[in-house]
Amino acid sequence: MDVFLDKIVRMHAINEYRTKFIDYLEARVKTKEPRNLYEPITYILGLGGKRLRPVLTLMATEIFGCDYKKALDAALAIEVFHNFSLVHDDIMDAAPLRRGKSTVHEKWDVNTGILSGDAMLITAYQLFENYECATFRNLAKLFSKTALQVCEGQQYDIDFEDRDDVTLPEYLKMIEYKTAVLVAAALEMGGIIAEASKEEQQNIYDFGLNLGIAFQLQDDYLDAFGDPKTFGKQVGGDIIENKKTFLYLNVLENGTSEQKKELLDMYSIQPQNPSDKIATIKEIFEESGSAKQTKLAIADYTNRAFTILEKLDISAEKKTLLQNFGENLMHRAV
Amino acid sequence: MDVFLDKIVRMHAINEYRTKFIDYLEARVKTKEPRNLYEPITYILGLGGKRLRPVLTLMATEIFGCDYKKALDAALAIEVFHNFSLVHDDIMDAAPLRRGKSTVHEKWDVNTGILSGDAMLITAYQLFENYECATFRNLAKLFSKTALQVCEGQQYDIDFEDRDDVTLPEYLKMIEYKTAVLVAAALEMGGIIAEASKEEQQNIYDFGLNLGIAFQLQDDYLDAFGDPKTFGKQVGGDIIENKKTFLYLNVLENGTSEQKKELLDMYSIQPQNPSDKIATIKEIFEESGSAKQTKLAIADYTNRAFTILEKLDISAEKKTLLQNFGENLMHRAV
Repeated sequence: MDVFLDKIVRMHAINEYRTKFIDYLEARVKTKEPRNLYEPITYILGLGGKRLRPVLTLMATEIFGCDYKKALDAALAIEVFHNFSLVHDDIMDAAPLRRGKSTVHEKWDVNTGILSGDAMLITAYQLFENYECATFRNLAKLFSKTALQVCEGQQYDIDFEDRDDVTLPEYLKMIEYKTAVLVAAALEMGGIIAEASKEEQQNIYDFGLNLGIAFQLQDDYLDAFGDPKTFGKQVGGDIIENKKTFLYLNVLENGTSEQKKELLDMYSIQPQNPSDKIATIKEIFEESGSAKQTKLAIADYTNRAFTILEKLDISAEKKTLLQNFGENLMHRAV
Repeated sequence: MDVFLDKIVRMHAINEYRTKFIDYLEARVKTKEPRNLYEPITYILGLGGKRLRPVLTLMATEIFGCDYKKALDAALAIEVFHNFSLVHDDIMDAAPLRRGKSTVHEKWDVNTGILSGDAMLITAYQLFENYECATFRNLAKLFSKTALQVCEGQQYDIDFEDRDDVTLPEYLKMIEYKTAVLVAAALEMGGIIAEASKEEQQNIYDFGLNLGIAFQLQDDYLDAFGDPKTFGKQVGGDIIENKKTFLYLNVLENGTSEQKKELLDMYSIQPQNPSDKIATIKEIFEESGSAKQTKLAIADYTNRAFTILEKLDISAEKKTLLQNFGENLMHRAV
């Protein structure tokens, strides 16, 4: 098949899963009584987003030879949990906007954000109840382990703000917990539902984990060096907020003492017009080799993911589907 | 056996369960990394409290013929969930104190309260993982249903603050969800672990539900008419805060138009020294028949609980144990 046509067909498959998922979400998520508890849930779940994680659950289920329909509840649980974490994180970050709309605590209030978030976390667990006993248990166990890691990742992220001795391995663990484990779990749930072997479940989990870390590192990279037209967020946002990203920590670990000093100086100011600050810091990122190291790390985690993919005992066609998804994700085309 | 001696023996059993539970809690709840996430959890779980709910789980398990040790994880889940709800509720109520000590959001901050609370909710689910498949599923399902009702109860409670048309049935539903369902679930979990029949599980649940409602109504009553020496909270606290309790709503539903008007007037003021306001409102509660109606409702729900107890297919001795617990609870001796 023509490579370009092939790609369109595979993208089409992803869009199909997304459409099926959104249909299911809209049918299942209804505002019940008390309205003040459930309306914010319907609101945040209706704001859109790429629905990447639930698509991965559906895709993994079919890759291991089971009808994606069996995975819709687990996929919804993953999406409900993801949005729960957004609602509570947005309170903690005092963020006014989410997907270009008001956050829940802005549109309602902080108490509503807390309580509706709690109800979402519980609802996610309830979505596993339709699975038979062993599947229910395996899904809920993986879910709890993952959800707790996401909380721990969020706590490390908060802790890092007040620390000036964060190491690169600590940073990698933080993004692994805060972001990558949920991508990994979304994929493994497909393996659980399709009753793939433990080894296959571990492999698809590891594929997702490495891809998730690569994605988050790329997010750090693009925040400084991305194309403002396609990145989707404000380029330089992390620099403006003095965020300790992989790029920043890499300078502190591998830069010259001059580069470190200049970076620390720059990170102590918050100018009205940040364009000079952004430009200077980007220069430090490039000259110190941090930008290059970050690109290497992204490539490394992406390659790890694709190497694990090779080990999976599935058809070449299905491997290509996952590889393609990974490539599209890393090219931000999904 | 001498009635008094009998009572001491039974109280002794309750204290034994409590001691065993606290030993287990202290062995299981350790502050892990990241400390800022887990330290508040160890703190709130270490503040004490009567541990009523976990004691009920242990007791119900033995009443249905199974070793209480099998129920320790479920009992801990119930206690962890109860404390999770306290941490998040205290944020919503901006409460500075809990059990005479600083609340989590006071000792740390609101964000810590949110995130550590989330981790507690997830930890509660994890505590069911040691049970075999069917038990795990039944416990987790009951837990999710109950936890969601507790959130709904909290939401109704918040909603009622801004409403002036709350009815007595609505109020009863609110306290059922916010308080009684967790007492009921704590007991039913014992039935699940001991593999009692569905009917027995329902009966013990209903016993707890009615006792829980009775207890909460009594809390309303004692807040106005309790003995300051033994009540444990400030007598008149609900009146000072203009809380719409069963006593208050009963006047609005059954009082004369004069009594209603006077009560509404009184509830619109917040005097520096509240003693006159408290005295006037207590008079309205008595003269309108609201105090009497509330006592009748307490007796009614208590009797319902004890009638259901009769239906249980357990030895007379075990029934007496539950009845005794209920009586001690209603006499606030537990």
